[in-house]
Amino acid sequence: MLEFNIKNSQGKARSATLKLNGNHIDTPCFMPVGTAATVKAMTASEVYDFGFKIILANTFHLMLRPGVEIISKHGGIHRFMNWAGSIITDSGGYQVFSLAKLRKITAEGVYFNSPIDGEKVFLDPKKSIWLQEQFGADIIMQFDECTPYPADKGTADKSLELSLEWGKRSKDSIAKDESNLFGIIQGGVHDDLRDKSLSGLLEIGFDGYAIGGLSVGETSEERNAVLDNIAHKMPSNKPRYLMGVGTPVDIVEAVLRGVDMFDCVIPTRNARTGFLYTKKGVLKLRNSKYKGDMSPIDEDCSCYTCLNYSRSYLRHLDTCKEILGLRLNTIHNLYYYHELMKGLRDSISLDRLEDFVREFYNSQNQEI
Amino acid sequence: MLEFNIKNSQGKARSATLKLNGNHIDTPCFMPVGTAATVKAMTASEVYDFGFKIILANTFHLMLRPGVEIISKHGGIHRFMNWAGSIITDSGGYQVFSLAKLRKITAEGVYFNSPIDGEKVFLDPKKSIWLQEQFGADIIMQFDECTPYPADKGTADKSLELSLEWGKRSKDSIAKDESNLFGIIQGGVHDDLRDKSLSGLLEIGFDGYAIGGLSVGETSEERNAVLDNIAHKMPSNKPRYLMGVGTPVDIVEAVLRGVDMFDCVIPTRNARTGFLYTKKGVLKLRNSKYKGDMSPIDEDCSCYTCLNYSRSYLRHLDTCKEILGLRLNTIHNLYYYHELMKGLRDSISLDRLEDFVREFYNSQNQEI
Repeated sequence: MLEFNIKNSQGKARSATLKLNGNHIDTPCFMPVGTAATVKAMTASEVYDFGFKIILANTFHLMLRPGVEIISKHGGIHRFMNWAGSIITDSGGYQVFSLAKLRKITAEGVYFNSPIDGEKVFLDPKKSIWLQEQFGADIIMQFDECTPYPADKGTADKSLELSLEWGKRSKDSIAKDESNLFGIIQGGVHDDLRDKSLSGLLEIGFDGYAIGGLSVGETSEERNAVLDNIAHKMPSNKPRYLMGVGTPVDIVEAVLRGVDMFDCVIPTRNARTGFLYTKKGVLKLRNSKYKGDMSPIDEDCSCYTCLNYSRSYLRHLDTCKEILGLRLNTIHNLYYYHELMKGLRDSISLDRLEDFVREFYNSQNQEI
Repeated sequence: MLEFNIKNSQGKARSATLKLNGNHIDTPCFMPVGTAATVKAMTASEVYDFGFKIILANTFHLMLRPGVEIISKHGGIHRFMNWAGSIITDSGGYQVFSLAKLRKITAEGVYFNSPIDGEKVFLDPKKSIWLQEQFGADIIMQFDECTPYPADKGTADKSLELSLEWGKRSKDSIAKDESNLFGIIQGGVHDDLRDKSLSGLLEIGFDGYAIGGLSVGETSEERNAVLDNIAHKMPSNKPRYLMGVGTPVDIVEAVLRGVDMFDCVIPTRNARTGFLYTKKGVLKLRNSKYKGDMSPIDEDCSCYTCLNYSRSYLRHLDTCKEILGLRLNTIHNLYYYHELMKGLRDSISLDRLEDFVREFYNSQNQEI
């Protein structure tokens, strides 16, 4: 149910079409995060109309609220939230380790206390896959342990071995023909461990491969070094997904290294604090110099917010904590991210990626 | 700049067209509240597209944030918030008495401390009118003192005398030809004082008349008694505005008594706590029985929310404090209010107001 056809490549970067249960997604693509079955502040149709055709939802959050029963009753997340595109779900592993009060990790799985009501919950590969299939996810992530940073080689090795074992059990747990399962490469910042992790995953065999354990505190140099080593070794005929990354610069650098898919809360979360992306760099709306500024966020931007509102009005909404401010800022940042991805895709297709990247860097950090 | 043409009347109720600086508004009308130059959670165009052609903005809030200078720079509230319809502003008086730490009331005006930064601020009829004119309001309210409830006759009389004096000074302060000034009837729940207040206002002469000092703690019987006495005595060829009212029932009862215009935070504020209006009565989304309820808020409602989302999803958004929940609930309640006003207008025009009101009451309080 997953087809991945490369249209063009330039250096290590590729533009491709991902066909997913009848849906066509152009890559490299960004997947907005809809943690609780809503991309915060947006309707599903607004996100779709920006041009995003796939979003990420969080298994951990959805298993706790509203619970699998209610989502199943709706026939899956798509209909629950009225989303016309595709959905990728994470495995829940990352949030278990970052958000929950852990009780016990064993080779079998993880016991933790729900951060909502303190109830004892168990999650293992089998349950994670079952949940994701019940949710109707178009792409399902294997259950893994996100190796923390920094991790010495021994710790990182032990962690990746656990993730490999859980990857195998995740695959064995798949029950639906239409499910597409991605494996997750761990190994911290150790090249040989990343190689070992990939090699183990290839033996199991997945529909796509993800790079996990990044964006957890490492420097951008370390992250780019991991990508330099591993991205081009990942199967070229399968989608490559860099989990939880990132800023516009992070994404550009990863596309140059051969990555196809991204998800991150940055555009939406930053929007809600008035941290706005423009072709000239970042505009921090809370800066007092915008108090009486009549211009739009970005004069070169055609989003609804820039076409209709002044920085002064948007700053006023932020100051007054008005809901409309959260919406208008989110619209702008998501539009920016979509334009960025489209620019990357088009320039790969037109063999002008180098020019695009040069222009991208040259236009950053201007006076806004 | 204000024309008011009655199209039909039935009993004391009237349907009319209010022409306001080029804008046509059908009455009886409800004016959503946009306190800080935004109807909370909505874009201006969404509110307009529901069919609302006039909203209320708060002088008190806007004078403090963002301040008159910034709104003037945009050419008024309309352009500041991108609103295509008309705007009525209150005088700021009500909020001075309810929200600010008062320092001193004199016959001249009011000194108070800003609830935002504690700064000392002065407001009097002249400044209130100047602010409202700078804001570009299509309807300007006189500066008044909202008589508290309960108030004995002596207190209420003294208060209405002050409001009359301030009404005269408000009129004297009008500087723009296109400004339309409304006087405000005070007098508490005392019929003779309401009569005295109206009589004093008529001597001064205004473009429209409002009933103030209600919805401040009195019972609905007391409120309806005030309306029974005063509404039909207000000039029949001028709009009659009942300030700060109310629930659907309150509005129906006031229309029956001859009122044309309403504003209230109820539909928007209640939406944000999951308190939703339907043709069958109120639905409280936080009731656990809606957790797995697949039906829309109201099967007979054609709003965007009811066409696209289940009660179960909306309850989930409310539980998770998701911004989208605030939006979708607000859409529903505003749509309901617009339908209610349209139903009242149409039934007056078609001489079937009694049927409409009977159906309205018969359909309330059903099992939802």
